[in-house]
Amino acid sequence: MGCAPMGHILYDEIMRYNPKNPYWFNRDRFVLSAGHGCMLQYALLHLAGYDSVQEDDLKNFRQWQSRTPGHPENFETPGVEVTTGPLGQGIANAVGLALAEKHLAARFNKPDNEIVDHYTYAILGDGCQMEGVANEACSLAGHWGLGKLIAFYDDNHISIDGDTEIAFTENVEERFKGLGWHVIWVKNGNTGYDEIRAAIKEAKAVKDKPTLIKVTTTIGYGSPNKANSYSVHGSALGAKEVDATRKNLVWPHEPFHVPEDVKGHWSRLVQQGAALEAEWNAKFAEYEKKYKDEAAELKLIITAELPAGWEKALPTYTPESPADATRNLSQQNLNALVKVLPGFFGGSADLASSNMTLLKMYGNFQKDTPEERNLRFGVREHGMGAICNGIAHHSPGLIPYCATFFVFTDYMRAAIRMSALSQAGVIYVMTHDSIGLGEDGPTHQPIEHLASLRAMPNVFMLRPADGNETAGAYKVAILNRNTPSIIALSRQKLTQLPGTSIKGVEKGGYIISDNSSGNNPDIILIGTGSELEIAAKAADELRKAGKAVRVVSLVSWELFDNQSDAYKESVLPSGVSARVSIEAGSTFGWEKIVGSKGKAIGIDRFGASAPAGRLYKEFGLTPEAVVAAAKELC
Amino acid sequence: MGCAPMGHILYDEIMRYNPKNPYWFNRDRFVLSAGHGCMLQYALLHLAGYDSVQEDDLKNFRQWQSRTPGHPENFETPGVEVTTGPLGQGIANAVGLALAEKHLAARFNKPDNEIVDHYTYAILGDGCQMEGVANEACSLAGHWGLGKLIAFYDDNHISIDGDTEIAFTENVEERFKGLGWHVIWVKNGNTGYDEIRAAIKEAKAVKDKPTLIKVTTTIGYGSPNKANSYSVHGSALGAKEVDATRKNLVWPHEPFHVPEDVKGHWSRLVQQGAALEAEWNAKFAEYEKKYKDEAAELKLIITAELPAGWEKALPTYTPESPADATRNLSQQNLNALVKVLPGFFGGSADLASSNMTLLKMYGNFQKDTPEERNLRFGVREHGMGAICNGIAHHSPGLIPYCATFFVFTDYMRAAIRMSALSQAGVIYVMTHDSIGLGEDGPTHQPIEHLASLRAMPNVFMLRPADGNETAGAYKVAILNRNTPSIIALSRQKLTQLPGTSIKGVEKGGYIISDNSSGNNPDIILIGTGSELEIAAKAADELRKAGKAVRVVSLVSWELFDNQSDAYKESVLPSGVSARVSIEAGSTFGWEKIVGSKGKAIGIDRFGASAPAGRLYKEFGLTPEAVVAAAKELC
Repeated sequence: MGCAPMGHILYDEIMRYNPKNPYWFNRDRFVLSAGHGCMLQYALLHLAGYDSVQEDDLKNFRQWQSRTPGHPENFETPGVEVTTGPLGQGIANAVGLALAEKHLAARFNKPDNEIVDHYTYAILGDGCQMEGVANEACSLAGHWGLGKLIAFYDDNHISIDGDTEIAFTENVEERFKGLGWHVIWVKNGNTGYDEIRAAIKEAKAVKDKPTLIKVTTTIGYGSPNKANSYSVHGSALGAKEVDATRKNLVWPHEPFHVPEDVKGHWSRLVQQGAALEAEWNAKFAEYEKKYKDEAAELKLIITAELPAGWEKALPTYTPESPADATRNLSQQNLNALVKVLPGFFGGSADLASSNMTLLKMYGNFQKDTPEERNLRFGVREHGMGAICNGIAHHSPGLIPYCATFFVFTDYMRAAIRMSALSQAGVIYVMTHDSIGLGEDGPTHQPIEHLASLRAMPNVFMLRPADGNETAGAYKVAILNRNTPSIIALSRQKLTQLPGTSIKGVEKGGYIISDNSSGNNPDIILIGTGSELEIAAKAADELRKAGKAVRVVSLVSWELFDNQSDAYKESVLPSGVSARVSIEAGSTFGWEKIVGSKGKAIGIDRFGASAPAGRLYKEFGLTPEAVVAAAKELC
Repeated sequence: MGCAPMGHILYDEIMRYNPKNPYWFNRDRFVLSAGHGCMLQYALLHLAGYDSVQEDDLKNFRQWQSRTPGHPENFETPGVEVTTGPLGQGIANAVGLALAEKHLAARFNKPDNEIVDHYTYAILGDGCQMEGVANEACSLAGHWGLGKLIAFYDDNHISIDGDTEIAFTENVEERFKGLGWHVIWVKNGNTGYDEIRAAIKEAKAVKDKPTLIKVTTTIGYGSPNKANSYSVHGSALGAKEVDATRKNLVWPHEPFHVPEDVKGHWSRLVQQGAALEAEWNAKFAEYEKKYKDEAAELKLIITAELPAGWEKALPTYTPESPADATRNLSQQNLNALVKVLPGFFGGSADLASSNMTLLKMYGNFQKDTPEERNLRFGVREHGMGAICNGIAHHSPGLIPYCATFFVFTDYMRAAIRMSALSQAGVIYVMTHDSIGLGEDGPTHQPIEHLASLRAMPNVFMLRPADGNETAGAYKVAILNRNTPSIIALSRQKLTQLPGTSIKGVEKGGYIISDNSSGNNPDIILIGTGSELEIAAKAADELRKAGKAVRVVSLVSWELFDNQSDAYKESVLPSGVSARVSIEAGSTFGWEKIVGSKGKAIGIDRFGASAPAGRLYKEFGLTPEAVVAAAKELC
């Protein structure tokens, strides 16, 4: 209720959008980072004429299968740009949206035709301000000079636990100035409409810095007894107080009833939105005539279409190709893909030279070089993930990737989950994916991370074993625009294995070698990533000893789960219970694959600081260990 | 090398510690938040006379089982206070250490005897500064006025990817002023010894604010060719450059050789440290005479000893006790435990009234009321976890707890992992542990979190079903001081079940009801937390239909794993493959429990916004579903 004036001014006067086409490319973007206030956004979408929020939807607030869930979900409600609720995510998404606009504008705008040109608005509260992810993203927004990002800070001094005095007494304005933002203070946010309008005007005039408009409001404004109290933060007012509020605000109308004069006032926006889009379409037609190639590229970004034959860019390898770390093979893919995919770009959280994520043809995306494609996130993993979610949600054809060490998925897990939930096809390039990183020790060595991400819905957790599998992982990642992919990559060199393939990766699990017949091997050895070659070596030994051995690469459990029962049976026949798996990570979850009679070789403790070879030996991740386990089973 | 002057001054002149007893209670604490520079700390510990770092240890840097791992690990190297390496954690731990000092000083110091009195020092780099967790913790340090926290910001302008100009151009001093810190700038950190000394003096004089001393240094200072370059960030100089550096610094001595005059200079610190501790011991003896009760309490905090009979404080329940949410039952435990455990305190990330974590006998720990025991973390989950790690590592008898919604373990996962790795017995009170929270929807509903935390080494993931189990979970959590416990609690009311017990919880898994004989039931139903009562209801139905049914509560998989094979067989006999589990979360990992012939009922998609009852029905988490699954198996 305290945010109503800001929201009203934005939707009624300021923002350029088309209610009948919520996906119009050049629309202004709005993010309600303080997602618990979503009823405000639903009400505004309703008033503005979006089909997604009808009167019945408002009445079904927070009910099963309604389009008005308890927090704004982009996949439920057209008009909602991103999914918010977990605090701090939304403002970081907004940074990504503004980055995308700045990047595309720099690449595609012409002196005579500024085809990309919109603002990104956000409302954030005290909770968002306290979250570290917000500070990370806002530090980058200042660094990048995202002048078309305008954030309203709803300064109501109330969070769930009461007055913010109990935990939040920092000087937010000073912090934001330090972060390189322009800061404006509107002291009377409850009724100061003109001040809000003036602040927006001032913000737009500052082109080289994002703007924070601190708007001091009263939570639950209008409620005579509950305004300015934490009791309205996440709870309804209650029937009695609703009555009192109606009286106080002189609002005699029925619940959910929009009076005719209000309807009349807002009704112009449908027509206005259609006109805005039509005008832009005409502009685009002009653009297309004059700048054919650029228009074709931009179209691919606006739609989710991939250019024909793009997958031919993926590198392939033979067993004779030199052994290499999959992080290096990953870089070959990144640099191949950027040549064919106009919406492909990204970067690392200060580990570009370790993650091997630099796009060699391009410079750094910076304040004055926003047309470039290497993003430099600094040591800000969480902000990085949330910014990439914003980029992905800006346009269906934008394909952001981001990178850090695999263990630091822990820092950005909340953002990864938002990718998965909000269906953002972000590519997470996660190198140094096991104890194989060696000397940096247990703080840097992932153990439980594969299991923990396999358990997350709507994520592809991929762990390629060599060059062909790395290319396969990228193929899966590019094709799946509504599912994030996490690609776990090795620091250490790996052999190019016979039998691996892009096609195999697309199935999630497949046979790389087999000397059995009739789908009935003596034993099945299963590996992922850097341990697949250990399984292959063990198979060689066992075959020498006369065993019929199948080796299976289980590069993505989720993709394998998606295959037909017949296919799965052809890879892991239910009649064969002699199974040994090897993976340099927690064995948690592997019982599903190896069954109760099989053996899962892994690491169920933290790692240690030592050279990688020594660690593999000490932790028992060796062909000898696989052979020994296999011999006990067959 | 750029930090050497700060480190040298701290260890040689400023800090009060006893090298021969690294655990002396009243020592100054030092945290190297920029953990990759750990060789500096090892060298200083060696020079200062700590037994943990001998010449051979320095030579075995980053080798298997050495006491000098690639990042500082408190559990490997006495003298290292906390485990650092993942950036930002260390400075947040330092906030926790300083908080603990301020709290204990306020509780125990007397006008005539300030028995608790030390400083906390930290060195952090640009990387730490960029991390959100650092901003969260530093915002709290400013809010709490932790005047005895002095942090050195090694401003060397270099991170792994190169000059910080590429991603970090914010004004750190301005941000820290905004956060309520006192800020000092030492412009010549490479050689400005006197300036550093003066800055520390100034910092100590400012008693109501923490101090950031920004020290501008040159990374790799002394190296003629590699100084001021990112190539020295995480890599060795190389033999040739080491030679050049030796020449440049006029250091003719053998590698690892400490010249006699240097040895002589440092040797006084062993004697000085012993004297400091002896002096303090005498002071404590005085204190004990005069303030017997306080001294007894403080002793419990200094040691890890628990007061005799403490566990009698745990509440117990009968099936007749009223149904209640486990979050409320948790609050009964918290308020019971705080009466008997002097080192027990904590709080929530702005959800105290939802997490039910307020200690009713106490006020808020604040700048001017630091003797109180309710911590108010604001919406800063990650900072909260890392601060609690610092508190736990301050003194073995400090038992911090912290709270948020279970889904937001994602925000603080890196801190939880540091609890586990560094053996900090933090208690994570995680409420709203399933779709049972209802209307807030999928952003707030944990799905994969139980699985993802069960996969993490050295964590007890506990999900109690009712009052007795909640008390049992707290008993486990309190007893295990080197393992963090995560207690998942319901928002919704749960029945007090017959058969549950504290003793049962201590085993991790146990039988709550059984109408079979000979350890051979027709079916075993397994549940955790809020779904245990669904399993119990299903058992009633099945028994009515003549089945012999066992119901098992699997409240903690890790504790159950720790039991003897005989005990495990007595609960889950290998001969009984008819098993059905029910848990409102991912089924990932449950194959281990139910076997390939059993059935795991759970949720392998994201949740939804609707009333809880409706969600349980829609997601098939009902007694009917359990009965149907059971009937297919027996």
